[in-house]
Amino acid sequence: MGTVVSSASTSLDGFVAYPNNDPGPLFDWYDAGDVEVVNAGDLPPFHLTRESADYWTGWLGEVGCLVVGRMLFDITDGWKGEHPIGVPFVVLTHEVPTDWAYASTGNAHFVTEGIEAAIAKAQELADGKSVAVAAGTVAGQALAAGLLDEVAIDLVPVVLGSGHRYFADVAPGAVKLGDPTVIIPSTRVTHLRFPVLR
Amino acid sequence: MGTVVSSASTSLDGFVAYPNNDPGPLFDWYDAGDVEVVNAGDLPPFHLTRESADYWTGWLGEVGCLVVGRMLFDITDGWKGEHPIGVPFVVLTHEVPTDWAYASTGNAHFVTEGIEAAIAKAQELADGKSVAVAAGTVAGQALAAGLLDEVAIDLVPVVLGSGHRYFADVAPGAVKLGDPTVIIPSTRVTHLRFPVLR
Repeated sequence: MGTVVSSASTSLDGFVAYPNNDPGPLFDWYDAGDVEVVNAGDLPPFHLTRESADYWTGWLGEVGCLVVGRMLFDITDGWKGEHPIGVPFVVLTHEVPTDWAYASTGNAHFVTEGIEAAIAKAQELADGKSVAVAAGTVAGQALAAGLLDEVAIDLVPVVLGSGHRYFADVAPGAVKLGDPTVIIPSTRVTHLRFPVLR
Repeated sequence: MGTVVSSASTSLDGFVAYPNNDPGPLFDWYDAGDVEVVNAGDLPPFHLTRESADYWTGWLGEVGCLVVGRMLFDITDGWKGEHPIGVPFVVLTHEVPTDWAYASTGNAHFVTEGIEAAIAKAQELADGKSVAVAAGTVAGQALAAGLLDEVAIDLVPVVLGSGHRYFADVAPGAVKLGDPTVIIPSTRVTHLRFPVLR
């Protein structure tokens, strides 16, 4: 099975969006260069620096499935059934939506039995490739449950002051990670990856 | 005048200590190598990696004065009048202590007129060298008031889940920094420095 990696653009004070879910300047690096990266679905192309583009395309090549929370699914309307990185996604939710307009795409899979079941389902769908876990409640629960192999942080040089945290719902207490295996400086972002210590 | 730089060991989720003020594993890097670094005062020597030792001694050579909050002063009992890095320190407080046992060292200077006055006093004492600002309320107030030139983060690969934040009391809204000018990977820490954009 592939590794399970959480990933998010993160402010220096640990936030992944403002309280109203706006990522604000956290996504500036997606338009900080001149290498065009085409997305699946209807998101316009990114324009990345060479450093970020190489990292991003390497990352895309690894990932076979995403795990996201219900909030992100609702905010994006499930990316209209086609996530920008073009892979199926598992939505961890308390209740499966019955009236979602894009159910027929077959790309969204709803799991109600908790984070462990969501990641297991994603690993099945990823078919040997990695599972990417979105920030917020799913990342926090996966970290707390020892289900993450790696934490990827696209560290953005900005202080937000308040907002949604990368790891929500993590009980107080330290989860130790290893020193970064990836450090890639770019423009408006430094790409970092940390292995989780078992 | 020297630059004004905030500095702290910080978890991946933006905390500088547990809620009870214990830094937990955030200070592991001070004992992660075999280069002995002697401290002023009664703190025992650090044992740093070569990379961290070089960064640390460079940092020490820059700094002429510290600004700390009243909480840190109380927790450490004002380092008994002798801060480990051997420079005078300014304490931002609402009330000057009248019974502090180490007042006669002359190293502590109390300022009650707010963060701007505290940094001005520190710059006077630093005599052309840099002013270092501790994490917490003083760092948050200095950042919000546009008084910081740089933010130094000793980024520790650990998730704490809750605790005291590097920048307390920063009003919601983005403070943009520049891309890091320093990125030094070490053991149990990555040393980073970001210029604050004006």
